[in-house]
Amino acid sequence: MTTALKAKELLIRAVECDQNGRILEAQTLYQDGIADLMSFVSTEPDDQRRKGFLTRINEYINRADAIKSRINGKLMLGKVIAHLSINENDTGHDYDQIFGEYMTKKTIEILIEEPYLTQNYQYQNLIRFLELAVTNCSQLKYIRLITKQDATNVDQQRTNLGQIKADLERRNVAFHIKYEDSLHDRRIYLSNGYIIKIGRGLHFYKASNPMYSIGLTNYKYRKCLQTDVDIWTNSNSTD
Amino acid sequence: MTTALKAKELLIRAVECDQNGRILEAQTLYQDGIADLMSFVSTEPDDQRRKGFLTRINEYINRADAIKSRINGKLMLGKVIAHLSINENDTGHDYDQIFGEYMTKKTIEILIEEPYLTQNYQYQNLIRFLELAVTNCSQLKYIRLITKQDATNVDQQRTNLGQIKADLERRNVAFHIKYEDSLHDRRIYLSNGYIIKIGRGLHFYKASNPMYSIGLTNYKYRKCLQTDVDIWTNSNSTD
Repeated sequence: MTTALKAKELLIRAVECDQNGRILEAQTLYQDGIADLMSFVSTEPDDQRRKGFLTRINEYINRADAIKSRINGKLMLGKVIAHLSINENDTGHDYDQIFGEYMTKKTIEILIEEPYLTQNYQYQNLIRFLELAVTNCSQLKYIRLITKQDATNVDQQRTNLGQIKADLERRNVAFHIKYEDSLHDRRIYLSNGYIIKIGRGLHFYKASNPMYSIGLTNYKYRKCLQTDVDIWTNSNSTD
Repeated sequence: MTTALKAKELLIRAVECDQNGRILEAQTLYQDGIADLMSFVSTEPDDQRRKGFLTRINEYINRADAIKSRINGKLMLGKVIAHLSINENDTGHDYDQIFGEYMTKKTIEILIEEPYLTQNYQYQNLIRFLELAVTNCSQLKYIRLITKQDATNVDQQRTNLGQIKADLERRNVAFHIKYEDSLHDRRIYLSNGYIIKIGRGLHFYKASNPMYSIGLTNYKYRKCLQTDVDIWTNSNSTD
């Protein structure tokens, strides 16, 4: 596909997602489409045509900016609807028990801000979360993951996350990875209006000890680290 | 504790288990108690007392033999009440979905015949089964595992199974391990009268591929190997 055709397709899909309220995916598609269009326009020799493209680029940039504001609005915390303090060595807490009820068929998009994804157990926790997402959210279309780059093993991280992306795409869930090295706070935003804030993010489990013991695979039996869980609705939730 | 006191305690517990219908545990306790009593009696200098002990040993041997017959009766297959053919690459089958409904609060004892327990994934499958057992069977008291000895790494196998035993005992579930090198068929007997026969035993899952993908931790998404599952009631089931 030529760059122009690819850009066109991305931007058509962006508008579709925008119209269907899938604003996270629309944002990604606008950004990718604009970048493609820009690289294409610089090679356009005809002044008039280039001007036409620039007008359209400008139009898409405005739409992308509008979406950014809407996303920022969605991410603004409204009120806490549930709170859970997990104590050191507590058991009985798996993701489903803690926040599964908020992940429903109305959850079309998910934004995961999880700074640490470099260790085996951290990838496992991500998969455990995604398994819950694909189980509970039957209409799930898009997940954006924001994480820090693994400074010591960039390639391994890209390979692992790339495999997860391919796997989700086979299930018709788009997966967009964004690296952000200043990220600290953990947050999971669900497009049906809930924001899950856990002090330690997804990584509040102790290792199975000894390895082969009850709790190795069923995390309701896993000992936890101390952390607080707050479930918020966003400030302009309509769901 | 002296050998004599230990033997006495084991045999008292054996009789208690016997009376409460916990015949698998009673069998183990009779065997251990008799062995202890025998090692003790050989060092008894008083002829009369030795004779007395031998009479009691004989009595316990008879009880143990009677229990063995009862266990063999319980293990005799009655009729198939459910059948499932799992095809190569099928998904949707975790232990709970396949046989969880038969593991209930009436399941006091479990006998697991699983010849192959040497690889990491095989120990994981065993733990997965045991997690289901402690979750569903609230009155579970005793599990007997019969398996082949790991010819290439005896120590590792003993360490792993020993850790599982200690872990279960912390949950007040006795775990007895018996090595039987001629074992081939897989079978799980539940004391509430069900016998689960799976061609491949617990090991009918393919590896997660790529490792970090949906199905790594939730086995409903794991691809399966071809195998047949038959759920039997035993021939003299009263439940």
